[in-house]
Amino acid sequence: MRIEEYKDRYPAELSGGQQQRVAIARTLAPNPKILLMDEPLSNLDAKLRNDMRAELKRLHLTTGSTFVYVTHDQSEAMTLSTKVALIKLGVLQQYCPPLELYGEPANTFCADFMGNPSMNFVNCHGHKDGNTIILDSKKFECRFTPNDPIDIPEQSEYVLGIRPEFVKICDDGLEAVVISSLPSGMETTLSLAVDDITLAAVAFGSVDFKMDSTVKFNFEGNRYVLFDKASTNKLTLGSLEIIR
Amino acid sequence: MRIEEYKDRYPAELSGGQQQRVAIARTLAPNPKILLMDEPLSNLDAKLRNDMRAELKRLHLTTGSTFVYVTHDQSEAMTLSTKVALIKLGVLQQYCPPLELYGEPANTFCADFMGNPSMNFVNCHGHKDGNTIILDSKKFECRFTPNDPIDIPEQSEYVLGIRPEFVKICDDGLEAVVISSLPSGMETTLSLAVDDITLAAVAFGSVDFKMDSTVKFNFEGNRYVLFDKASTNKLTLGSLEIIR
Repeated sequence: MRIEEYKDRYPAELSGGQQQRVAIARTLAPNPKILLMDEPLSNLDAKLRNDMRAELKRLHLTTGSTFVYVTHDQSEAMTLSTKVALIKLGVLQQYCPPLELYGEPANTFCADFMGNPSMNFVNCHGHKDGNTIILDSKKFECRFTPNDPIDIPEQSEYVLGIRPEFVKICDDGLEAVVISSLPSGMETTLSLAVDDITLAAVAFGSVDFKMDSTVKFNFEGNRYVLFDKASTNKLTLGSLEIIR
Repeated sequence: MRIEEYKDRYPAELSGGQQQRVAIARTLAPNPKILLMDEPLSNLDAKLRNDMRAELKRLHLTTGSTFVYVTHDQSEAMTLSTKVALIKLGVLQQYCPPLELYGEPANTFCADFMGNPSMNFVNCHGHKDGNTIILDSKKFECRFTPNDPIDIPEQSEYVLGIRPEFVKICDDGLEAVVISSLPSGMETTLSLAVDDITLAAVAFGSVDFKMDSTVKFNFEGNRYVLFDKASTNKLTLGSLEIIR
């Protein structure tokens, strides 16, 4: 922050973001070991908030201080933290780096908490087929191949977790009806209906889809999360192949 | 909205999103030709706001009514509207579908207004080279090839508009230092420094970059916008090739 040009101004004559930066500078001056922040960016507009996030993250690195940061904004927790402690009703659910929380959530609560749009959850009955599991959601059937070998029961009830960005619109695959299409310019958030199952999908790029039109989609990558339905705990990650 | 299970509740016993939906239902009941909405979603949390956006867009289609929607949230304007009228100090800047406003902004004001992170603007001196323009930003030199043939002056001053998602991190290209890296899980917003030019970049996927590390990037696609520096008006769109 170049402070020279502002040095003759009173705090009220500074913009919201500048005031916030002055407040942070003041807090950092005595070189504290720990800094506690309670929603420091909530009063700023969206663009300024993004700039300030980057600045706070730099400060965290350059000062070497520990930042404890309270926010109701999950994306702020994701982008700023080195580790997230996710607590539900006093019980620690997961304590790990944010990208791990996003990609390998310990249970459906953690999975649902991070990400916008949220992870899709599909209830499935599963039966063993060699080292894979055939998942039947009544509306479609998939083969789930675990990334690492696991003990698979003969029959079981699962929740399949699918991040919206892994639902890939393509030329062949399952048919779905476009319930809504919200293009932001950079990416488009879709709501797709496969019979009575609704899936959120994100298509990168400046694209739009007609409402009520039919599209086809496929599942790409190997970051699908299989949860045990009864305990809601994560069992494993794996890839997904559509059977019908 | 399945109203059955809520029919015995008083408005105060409904959640924020439900109240909002009741208010909209009430407004739609007399089948109005035009519906005026003033920031209808501003009091809702981020997830609910996304759900409501999709519902409003569906309502717009199914009712056939004209919606006039006031919002201070650019992404809401982008995702919901069929047409945006962008007015600055009483003068219409552009009136077009939102993806056109995003991809082919009439001037730097329109370009800067839409998109998060904002479009990068790089001041360049340009000279003609056949049907292309050699752009020199002092820190790097590029060949700009217009998508459609245009009259190119021998020498001129330009502003080059680069959307963050077109800055592609790759194995060869220009070197830059990572000033900040903000991963959201689905995508990562980067701030890259090429000498004293700072570029915002967006990398899709669950990736992170070390602060102060050096990366290489390239420009992909043909959606780069060339503005006239003096008038700030858009001249043309084209592709970009790094010379040095």
